[in-house]
Amino acid sequence: MIVFFTDFGAQGPYLGQMEMVIRRALPTEPVVNLLADAPRFDPKSSAYLLAALSPGIPRQSVVLAVVDPGVGGERLPLVVEADGVLFVGPDNGLFEPLIRRSGSIRAWEIVWRPERMSASFHGRDLFAPIAARLAAGLGPEDAGCRTMEAPRRPDWPDDLAAIIYHDHYGNAWTGLRAAILGETTVLRAGGHDFHRARTFSDVPPGKGFWYENSAGLAEIAVNGGSAARLPSLALGACVTK
Amino acid sequence: MIVFFTDFGAQGPYLGQMEMVIRRALPTEPVVNLLADAPRFDPKSSAYLLAALSPGIPRQSVVLAVVDPGVGGERLPLVVEADGVLFVGPDNGLFEPLIRRSGSIRAWEIVWRPERMSASFHGRDLFAPIAARLAAGLGPEDAGCRTMEAPRRPDWPDDLAAIIYHDHYGNAWTGLRAAILGETTVLRAGGHDFHRARTFSDVPPGKGFWYENSAGLAEIAVNGGSAARLPSLALGACVTK
Amino acid sequence: MIVFFTDFGAQGPYLGQMEMVIRRALPTEPVVNLLADAPRFDPKSSAYLLAALSPGIPRQSVVLAVVDPGVGGERLPLVVEADGVLFVGPDNGLFEPLIRRSGSIRAWEIVWRPERMSASFHGRDLFAPIAARLAAGLGPEDAGCRTMEAPRRPDWPDDLAAIIYHDHYGNAWTGLRAAILGETTVLRAGGHDFHRARTFSDVPPGKGFWYENSAGLAEIAVNGGSAARLPSLALGACVTK
Repeated sequence: MIVFFTDFGAQGPYLGQMEMVIRRALPTEPVVNLLADAPRFDPKSSAYLLAALSPGIPRQSVVLAVVDPGVGGERLPLVVEADGVLFVGPDNGLFEPLIRRSGSIRAWEIVWRPERMSASFHGRDLFAPIAARLAAGLGPEDAGCRTMEAPRRPDWPDDLAAIIYHDHYGNAWTGLRAAILGETTVLRAGGHDFHRARTFSDVPPGKGFWYENSAGLAEIAVNGGSAARLPSLALGACVTK
Repeated sequence: MIVFFTDFGAQGPYLGQMEMVIRRALPTEPVVNLLADAPRFDPKSSAYLLAALSPGIPRQSVVLAVVDPGVGGERLPLVVEADGVLFVGPDNGLFEPLIRRSGSIRAWEIVWRPERMSASFHGRDLFAPIAARLAAGLGPEDAGCRTMEAPRRPDWPDDLAAIIYHDHYGNAWTGLRAAILGETTVLRAGGHDFHRARTFSDVPPGKGFWYENSAGLAEIAVNGGSAARLPSLALGACVTK
Repeated sequence: MIVFFTDFGAQGPYLGQMEMVIRRALPTEPVVNLLADAPRFDPKSSAYLLAALSPGIPRQSVVLAVVDPGVGGERLPLVVEADGVLFVGPDNGLFEPLIRRSGSIRAWEIVWRPERMSASFHGRDLFAPIAARLAAGLGPEDAGCRTMEAPRRPDWPDDLAAIIYHDHYGNAWTGLRAAILGETTVLRAGGHDFHRARTFSDVPPGKGFWYENSAGLAEIAVNGGSAARLPSLALGACVTK
């Protein structure tokens, strides 16, 4: 299975162009678009989101992870194997929380280059062909990569105390795993306090709260309303506990 | 074929997570995303939309229908077979108009539960695994369901005299089947009158009208404009005939 | 491979309904949604976009191209073969720039009609069944088409000096191929001048510029900002060089 995780947006030609590259090589391989609205130009927030969504990705999948504001600049192109899943994408921290939470890690630099590579779309020109080869069963060394030490971001925290995602229902995801928080932990953002609840139906309408969402993260929500519209819960806003 | 009908939005991780569950079990089964922007938190409007779109769904398909504001609460999880198509989703009325318009109906309660079930995402944790088993050819009883009387909503109307959907072109779908209306029926909403036309090219630019849309519903449109922006045609607005 | 190019929007039931028609006939044929937000009701801008994206489409693919504001009116339904790719859609100019840039061209009128055809959704009712037959290997004559001279728009320019698309990152695509412009060409729109750069990382933050995008078009962008929000770069705005 090939899984897309990008900030390309649900609209536009980028996902489709990347999928055409995959499909040309592997017509019947399942391709799943896991997320297309990762925080735009923000590899750090995206990294904590990717780590939270990764437990649902089947082993032996190849994840094409492209949140790549530095495309065309100096950053390395990488393959990272974490607990049996291969991740392909830019070296900008996108894989840091994932690496930190994984039992086994290996990394490779992608040294292969296509004949023609656009300045702005390495997802299509570089990462997708590599992903297709890996999904076809080639080992990274045979697919144009050379082994390296996994690049790390030691200064990044284990969990990100900030709003990293707004979902379609108007809920605000934090980068904090609920499992590291207590039942009585109060999350604070922009002067507002949010207490923990099990889910929406346990809270009166109009009331803000936080709960463990389906990705295991602390998510701030308003029953019957939109947390995402509160200025204190904008993307990137700090959360304290 | 597995067909998704949800209010998850075209963006976000929910569709992809659900599809990963399906793909892990059935890598080559076709999965079609029929609608991801069913009226949010509104099973009643969604139900009339689902019924209108259902004639295009091939027999023996499995439809994963998730508009489920009561997730985590008391509502039953259901499988309904209507005219040879299997529908999997919550018991909140979502299947009522469909049932009413079908020749043959059978229903089952889903009694199987996964080892781990999130409080807020039964689409991924409960309904998708059941849909995968049904699509693999298991009968509902073998897939963890037990037969029951189809739950009904006798107080719901046969057609919904309200705006139930706004499409990408700015057209306002009603929940009224065009076939029950006459050629001269005038639809009224918020003080405006809309006469019937065959299609856009039969009406002067800027003029509002209604016509039988491609799903068989009466749809209110403005030639070269947006009906959806009129306050009288907001989602949920009443329509009289 | 079947490729969708439409103005249907990423949301809504139209893509899914079209895909169900394809999947029913060809369960395992790859279907790629290349673009769903082609300029709405605007076959001319869409045509230059389609031509720019076409080099990435594998030979022997079938492209279902539906930007069709005249649906239900007089325009012919067409099949066009250009350099080994089959395009299916309305005769409204959508294939003109493509034809002009192709080495070999053949065209057919679709004469087959389905038993039931809605007035507003020929993508599902007429074009998709034809595309499925072509993708299954039938020749156009055996699929319900008859050969004709390719219809042309001789008054259209080779490149369109206008904004034809806004992408998810806020960049404004012109209909001008970068290859016909010089390194020192200045693009002008609404009184603003944009100089050429290689890519974002070569330009200071906040600065507007143009560059050759991944589809080979001159694209106007603001490093770290949104060109699409500038009124002078609205969809359809003229660009001079």
